[in-house]
Amino acid sequence: MKEIEVPDIVVSRLPLYLRTLEFLAMEGREITSSAELAERLGLNPAQIRKDLSYFGSFGQQGRGYSVKGLIEALRQILNLEREWEVALVGVGDLGRALVHYQGFKDKGFRLALLFDNNPQKIGMKIGGLEIMDSALIPKLIPERGIKIAIIAVPPQEAQKVADVLVSAGVEAILNYAPVNLKVPPHVKVHYIDPVVGLRHMTYYLPRPQQ
Amino acid sequence: MKEIEVPDIVVSRLPLYLRTLEFLAMEGREITSSAELAERLGLNPAQIRKDLSYFGSFGQQGRGYSVKGLIEALRQILNLEREWEVALVGVGDLGRALVHYQGFKDKGFRLALLFDNNPQKIGMKIGGLEIMDSALIPKLIPERGIKIAIIAVPPQEAQKVADVLVSAGVEAILNYAPVNLKVPPHVKVHYIDPVVGLRHMTYYLPRPQQ
Repeated sequence: MKEIEVPDIVVSRLPLYLRTLEFLAMEGREITSSAELAERLGLNPAQIRKDLSYFGSFGQQGRGYSVKGLIEALRQILNLEREWEVALVGVGDLGRALVHYQGFKDKGFRLALLFDNNPQKIGMKIGGLEIMDSALIPKLIPERGIKIAIIAVPPQEAQKVADVLVSAGVEAILNYAPVNLKVPPHVKVHYIDPVVGLRHMTYYLPRPQQ
Repeated sequence: MKEIEVPDIVVSRLPLYLRTLEFLAMEGREITSSAELAERLGLNPAQIRKDLSYFGSFGQQGRGYSVKGLIEALRQILNLEREWEVALVGVGDLGRALVHYQGFKDKGFRLALLFDNNPQKIGMKIGGLEIMDSALIPKLIPERGIKIAIIAVPPQEAQKVADVLVSAGVEAILNYAPVNLKVPPHVKVHYIDPVVGLRHMTYYLPRPQQ
């Protein structure tokens, strides 16, 4: 039901707002403000108000936002009113960490299929799920109607895996491999790259004396 | 040597530009443009030019940017002309994955100290590094002058670990635990949160029929 095209840079900030609101809710807070959200996120309050204004009118002048109300609105905007099943490809150290990750719970996502191409891993159970042969991606992903996958394979295998996932109907890929994936325009890729975060922070660290 | 205050939102985009330029360099490309960078990143070319203009004049009208030149400039801006030693706290599945991560190489970072509080892990070697007792953080981090740490411990331990790291002199924390850390204002925290990336992408996925 999107009527105007919202810039992706705006969309990219909404999950940060939602996460911060969820932290506030866990702290028992009922009301917040663009100023408080901005401070917690290192952003500008005017930008937060402008971003939200793409989607309607939230909160009341001088009274702030209802934490619960804004959480509900953002979940609706971000298409999180259903739970999304996610396929994970690559059950190495990182894959295992993701299977046990406590951050997916109640956030709208559930790992539903695990794949690996290592015969010694196929058939093993982890976190209540059986590790399936990656060769079954083209069969199982369309059967389950899964649209989201996480790539946690070695970098040299990532593009090949992405190609198979896209052919199987995946439209959103969370990529942990440190390589740039080529995908068709209808497929979104989000990179999880610790180096990006580290390099953001080094800007603020002491510089060598000149 | 910063003369004007650059908004953090601008700084946060520079590592993305740098990563994209490094991908282009790996592809053997010598020249690029704000249009090409924008397309690869899903951003606006004018915004990229404006972001870079905070730091000087790069590229020539109509000729684009030298990939190598802009990489060097961004590495200098982001304080990456030295290699940074990084401490990792928590050598579970995720910690092990980070020790073996191939993305730090040549990117300005080197894992230098590993800590865990599990007596069965302390003293073990992984990736050429011995796992040290977390109780030694207050001694070893100042001795090595380490300013950057990665938190890969369970969520309920993350704040306690952050407190110890900050007391030991750490000023930049990459946090994998799905909790909001409270730190003093001089300390930067970057969150690695797969849910943020997933929720960005669900915006674009098909919505339930109304």
